[in-house]
Amino acid sequence: MTGSNNDSLLVVGSIAFDDLDMPSGEFRSVLGGSATYASLAASLLSPVRTVGVVGADFPESFLEQVRARGVDTSGIERAEGQTFRWHGRYSSNLASRTTIDTQLNVFANFAPRILSVHRTCSFVLLGNIRPQLQTDVLEQMPRCKYVAADTMNFWIAGEPVALALLLRRVDLLIINDEEARALSGIDNLVRAAADIRKRGPKALVIKRGEFGSLLFDDTGTFFAPGYPLEEVLDPTGAGDAFAGGLMGYLVSRGEVSPSVVRQAMFFASALGSFCVESVGPARLLAIGRSDLAARIGAFARLVDHGGNLGLSV
Amino acid sequence: MTGSNNDSLLVVGSIAFDDLDMPSGEFRSVLGGSATYASLAASLLSPVRTVGVVGADFPESFLEQVRARGVDTSGIERAEGQTFRWHGRYSSNLASRTTIDTQLNVFANFAPRILSVHRTCSFVLLGNIRPQLQTDVLEQMPRCKYVAADTMNFWIAGEPVALALLLRRVDLLIINDEEARALSGIDNLVRAAADIRKRGPKALVIKRGEFGSLLFDDTGTFFAPGYPLEEVLDPTGAGDAFAGGLMGYLVSRGEVSPSVVRQAMFFASALGSFCVESVGPARLLAIGRSDLAARIGAFARLVDHGGNLGLSV
Repeated sequence: MTGSNNDSLLVVGSIAFDDLDMPSGEFRSVLGGSATYASLAASLLSPVRTVGVVGADFPESFLEQVRARGVDTSGIERAEGQTFRWHGRYSSNLASRTTIDTQLNVFANFAPRILSVHRTCSFVLLGNIRPQLQTDVLEQMPRCKYVAADTMNFWIAGEPVALALLLRRVDLLIINDEEARALSGIDNLVRAAADIRKRGPKALVIKRGEFGSLLFDDTGTFFAPGYPLEEVLDPTGAGDAFAGGLMGYLVSRGEVSPSVVRQAMFFASALGSFCVESVGPARLLAIGRSDLAARIGAFARLVDHGGNLGLSV
Repeated sequence: MTGSNNDSLLVVGSIAFDDLDMPSGEFRSVLGGSATYASLAASLLSPVRTVGVVGADFPESFLEQVRARGVDTSGIERAEGQTFRWHGRYSSNLASRTTIDTQLNVFANFAPRILSVHRTCSFVLLGNIRPQLQTDVLEQMPRCKYVAADTMNFWIAGEPVALALLLRRVDLLIINDEEARALSGIDNLVRAAADIRKRGPKALVIKRGEFGSLLFDDTGTFFAPGYPLEEVLDPTGAGDAFAGGLMGYLVSRGEVSPSVVRQAMFFASALGSFCVESVGPARLLAIGRSDLAARIGAFARLVDHGGNLGLSV
């Protein structure tokens, strides 16, 4: 598909206060949520319109920070009550985390309403929310041309029928390896991917954190590495930043050819790598396009094998 | 460095009977050992001369199988007593293994003697044996131009001084992520790599199994993915096949430029990926150069992002 040059990315998802117990300290009421991380990452590459809900307690200064990145926040509803809050604790090497508490608050009754001015977006990123709500968004956007979606084990186990209906309408599913295994019931990722693609998604990205990510599409299988960082502070939101970076790049190119999607995987991985360099979204809020260009250059060197890989037989 | 066209790879390491408790069954007296796997992998790419020891119980037919791949086994000594035997048990998803029993047998008194006809090899791969023995090999080969070595946590913890002396003579150290962390005492692999390279090795490869491998050298950092396989039967020897494939490719090119080493990483990963497709070395024994060429082609597609990764700023 080819889009028009003035396309935007519509991002739907959660906006949250995160309470983070990290090896480096305890951080409270950090700006978080899938829509936040995805929107900030995408904003370096394309216009972004964010749809979500916050409570009366959500500081206007947080929305200002997001708007300062050029994100259109007019689709963020302010509801009576408190903002969604997640409290997580990470292991000492950051390799695993446990949820201490989840308070859905205003997010419990979230029903995304897409403003008419936003219904022209050709590209939609459906962050990890209830599958029926993801479908409701698509119902409101009949002109949408390319749909990416995330989900999680909670919906895979709890709402398989609604999720199956959604998957039939998804162009690109972006999930992690655990989710791919849970969704397919298959441990091997290559076979899991084949199974999942039969359920609807034309393409599938499986994220493996620091170990990189795999793309499965009609052209074949593609791999993009994680960036080898000297310091990782907080993995929160990295998967959302990855998805936002991927979709932002597709919007910026205005097309979704196999090679453009492959290039987008590096922008996704680069934005995920920035995300983990700070607690919360501070690093995503601080970087500019020149930082992104420099990291993309480092990625290019990371995978440049400098020649023909042929072998005479 | 540049070598001559008739160079060979000298491989020193263990030759073993492996008793393997796999999810797919129990396998006894399987041909194994680091020198075996490395030699078989390298043999698809270059002439190989193997140095090791076997006991009186080692079947001549096993040596015949290795020779049939063009490997020169004249450096394999036959000693009184029994062959080295390792008994390992893998977890159901093959992600971890435990050693049930190790019987060093004739390997306990192994002192590698390099035949004069083998001392002309420009490239040496020192498999994982006692560090002092690895150094002894180098003492016998003053004309050797490029040395790669492996080691393991047992020597890192138990023989740090002998290992430190060896590392000063190593061009390329090929170890896994656990070993890199143990050797450096640093959890982060980028910083661990910088620390290890200060100890001598001009270049370092850190293997991460199915997650691929990282190369650190004066040119920078390079990443080669693991090949996404539909079925993995037995990881035994994959790291040795990786090292053998890497060195075999360097010998075949006769030079060790940064781009040749980067290309060699794909041949290494390809040979590691074949290795795990059978229990024991059966798959390495069965494949030919056309199989390797096909897999290298698949690797090239796996990482081909089809264009410029630039970003206008």
